[in-house]
Amino acid sequence: MIEKSKSRSKLILRNLGINTYKEAVIYMREDCHVCKAEGFEVQARVQVSNLRNSVIATLNVIKSNLLQQGEVGLSEYAIEKLAARGGEELFICHPGTIASLSDMRSKIYGNSLNKSQFSVIIDDIVNGQYSDIHISSFLTACAGGRLNKQEILNLTEAMIESGDRLEWGKELVVDKHCVGGLPGNRTTPIVVAIVSAFGLTMPKTSSRAITSPAGTADTMEVLAPVDLDVSKLRRVVEKENGCIVWGGSVSLSPADDLLIRVEKALDLDSEGQLIASVLSKKIAAGSSHVLIDIPVGPTAKVRSTEMADELSRHLEYTGTALGLNVRAHTSDGRQPIGNGIGPALEARDLVKVLQNKKDAPKDLRERALDLAGLTLEFSSKVQNGAGREIAENILVTDKAWEKFQSICEAQGGQKEIPVAQYTRSIEASNLGNVSNIDNRRIAKAAKLAGAPNEPVAGIDLHVNLGSKVDIGQPIFTVHSSSVGELEYAISYIKSQEDIISIKGGS
Amino acid sequence: MIEKSKSRSKLILRNLGINTYKEAVIYMREDCHVCKAEGFEVQARVQVSNLRNSVIATLNVIKSNLLQQGEVGLSEYAIEKLAARGGEELFICHPGTIASLSDMRSKIYGNSLNKSQFSVIIDDIVNGQYSDIHISSFLTACAGGRLNKQEILNLTEAMIESGDRLEWGKELVVDKHCVGGLPGNRTTPIVVAIVSAFGLTMPKTSSRAITSPAGTADTMEVLAPVDLDVSKLRRVVEKENGCIVWGGSVSLSPADDLLIRVEKALDLDSEGQLIASVLSKKIAAGSSHVLIDIPVGPTAKVRSTEMADELSRHLEYTGTALGLNVRAHTSDGRQPIGNGIGPALEARDLVKVLQNKKDAPKDLRERALDLAGLTLEFSSKVQNGAGREIAENILVTDKAWEKFQSICEAQGGQKEIPVAQYTRSIEASNLGNVSNIDNRRIAKAAKLAGAPNEPVAGIDLHVNLGSKVDIGQPIFTVHSSSVGELEYAISYIKSQEDIISIKGGS
Repeated sequence: MIEKSKSRSKLILRNLGINTYKEAVIYMREDCHVCKAEGFEVQARVQVSNLRNSVIATLNVIKSNLLQQGEVGLSEYAIEKLAARGGEELFICHPGTIASLSDMRSKIYGNSLNKSQFSVIIDDIVNGQYSDIHISSFLTACAGGRLNKQEILNLTEAMIESGDRLEWGKELVVDKHCVGGLPGNRTTPIVVAIVSAFGLTMPKTSSRAITSPAGTADTMEVLAPVDLDVSKLRRVVEKENGCIVWGGSVSLSPADDLLIRVEKALDLDSEGQLIASVLSKKIAAGSSHVLIDIPVGPTAKVRSTEMADELSRHLEYTGTALGLNVRAHTSDGRQPIGNGIGPALEARDLVKVLQNKKDAPKDLRERALDLAGLTLEFSSKVQNGAGREIAENILVTDKAWEKFQSICEAQGGQKEIPVAQYTRSIEASNLGNVSNIDNRRIAKAAKLAGAPNEPVAGIDLHVNLGSKVDIGQPIFTVHSSSVGELEYAISYIKSQEDIISIKGGS
Repeated sequence: MIEKSKSRSKLILRNLGINTYKEAVIYMREDCHVCKAEGFEVQARVQVSNLRNSVIATLNVIKSNLLQQGEVGLSEYAIEKLAARGGEELFICHPGTIASLSDMRSKIYGNSLNKSQFSVIIDDIVNGQYSDIHISSFLTACAGGRLNKQEILNLTEAMIESGDRLEWGKELVVDKHCVGGLPGNRTTPIVVAIVSAFGLTMPKTSSRAITSPAGTADTMEVLAPVDLDVSKLRRVVEKENGCIVWGGSVSLSPADDLLIRVEKALDLDSEGQLIASVLSKKIAAGSSHVLIDIPVGPTAKVRSTEMADELSRHLEYTGTALGLNVRAHTSDGRQPIGNGIGPALEARDLVKVLQNKKDAPKDLRERALDLAGLTLEFSSKVQNGAGREIAENILVTDKAWEKFQSICEAQGGQKEIPVAQYTRSIEASNLGNVSNIDNRRIAKAAKLAGAPNEPVAGIDLHVNLGSKVDIGQPIFTVHSSSVGELEYAISYIKSQEDIISIKGGS
């Protein structure tokens, strides 16, 4: 919500081709007459409009001849928000006060915000009124347990209302979500395949990685296109009952991707924001029932059963208040799931499970069957406790694999899984049993190797907790698409003594 | 503190002339071989070095021909940090982990930080390791009363140690500071003139505006150069006993300006940061005794005597722990001081006081004499209660004005006060007495008019609390250096009913 200014000045857009990701930047000459007339200084927030749209951008001042007199430059994101073309006339003015910033400051000072305050903040973020500095402050003010139950509910509703909302005209629309923190835990595509093969509707929208080496959308993208718009998504689900697409390309809870981008830079993933992020997407996607998997372990995102219980309560409270049936499920989060960590390596593992291959990771298969079973139990046709057997039957009869292939085709065609050009194995330095695997540091090594930006990059684990190893036996392999990243990951791993601890002898 | 990476790639610097203020940005072609080899994606943090220096910059990707293959661009700030030249070979690599970010996250989650944790964070900020997103999060995590006494002390020490420290070889080195929030309250230059005319040493470093229409450095800059380096500052003080310079140009507490830049974007000025900011600069400047003026009023920065008392306690506690004698002084903060609000208008007022002009603002004169008197009482030659009379004597005998002129000359030469090209007066819409003046909104109007970036811009008040006014009588005048800003300030003022309230009739 901005106060309109009457004074406006015109400049011609020159496309400089500068990609700043999702930050709107405006470039103006130091001696630009508009800069002078309006009194703009470097780093000022400037409102720029064409006849259709408007965006607030941060001013960078050009001291060279990148721009001619009378010209203005914009970052690619600002051009996209305006739907502007090079040579077009743009109007430049003071942006007026962003009234919601005083509510944000109120939150910093520990006050609670109501629904309409969150709504205006979220709308201002979606409409490009906030700079990265503002978004970072908002996220930090809400992190560390500083949102109460009502505020989490308010924020969730605000996020739902900021975007589109799907309707399926069905009583039962199921979903499944994992709060993450467990490298390689890529059960979702398997669960969707089983559940939609059974006949339930499961329009799954997934996110890309926030702080992890891969999000479900990153992994699924290795196997099929995931950036489907709403009408394409609808066609896939009508044909196949289910889909696995990236939530960012359908405009469900559009604030979420803008917030996640800054959370990623901060490596921050707070409880209130997590709940609002997850539930706003589920509700906007039209789900009626959602199963939420919470892995618990000393180096998982949730470290104790107390934290898991509190998170479950918050999720169930918020879901119920918004008409969503939430079932929270706690699982073992002491070690990574599957062997691969990183998009392509995880895709390889989940395909093996779907194909019932003998060397498919058992832990991934077991966990996917547990979750598929619980999801099936949302159906009135499946009794409590009977879901897992039904799920296993669908998997072993290849119905899940057939369904998964059909979904990939419907999403735009199944793809071959690529492999990394550069790999190096790390060997056990002593004999014994694997006593600990540090989820956080193994995930960090996978990220340093290039995941998720480079899909082939990551870590391929060759051991589990309890595995017996000999000196010199490879315990994991680093995969990378560039020598630089491979070396960087290796040098990090060598600087850390006990990412994987091996104890005892015998 | 960063982990060094071994993998490095070289590119040639092309000077693009892009001023991003104090954010380090690196520009690389989309198809740059280093981008590909290192796996960099837009918005990545990239370490760039020459043979002398190193800085971490945020990656913007160039999709046009601004750069040739093998070239790299940097923002002006990054070039300055590297002391690099166009055509020079630069080394590009992954920046490694910024270990202090995990301490910052710990603070977000409500934990206390010790001295060494604050030191590493502050050093990382000074060394350009933090992006604006990180700095914003750090400031927010510390705002809203989330730093305890020990943490404020730790942060203050960390800020002192991050820069230079002046030594004067004298037992008594005095200083005076106002916590602000009161438009036009520009007593400092008057106090310095009186106190140094008396013979005390007062090396005053002032800040530019954070969230106000003018900082003391902004106002003083209208009258004389303020960006003196340490050796020049020392010569001025040795010759004249006192000076009034900008703290940012001497490298005292260099983190402060980097933090203030982001605080300004957030319009945030929190207690812990305020204490650390003020005291770190005083101690680094070599002060032994400091008087701190805390104006209290419903629309001042400090709104109640309880808040003032708490702030006084924190200031005195932190000062004492660091060997600084702090005297906190509470004053009336119900309305602006002087007539002018904005650098040039405030400079005009304070010169009138120094010159003993009949139309000098009485409130500014009285307040400056009070504070000068209290500052003189730090001297063993001045008894408690006797300071004010001595101060007044120095003022009325023109010794203060002579000293002020000498200080201006020593700093580089006294300047003429400029006047605004565009002005417009606002008239009283009814008859009565002025019952309220909203400091915050009158300050905002002055900022919208262009202050402090445009020194001539601001508000010139023609009334005080209690003034009797007729319908149509001008109550204040907006000054601006551009039509755009004048109109923008006027449109804001017209949208606000009671910036200055007039009650009753008679």
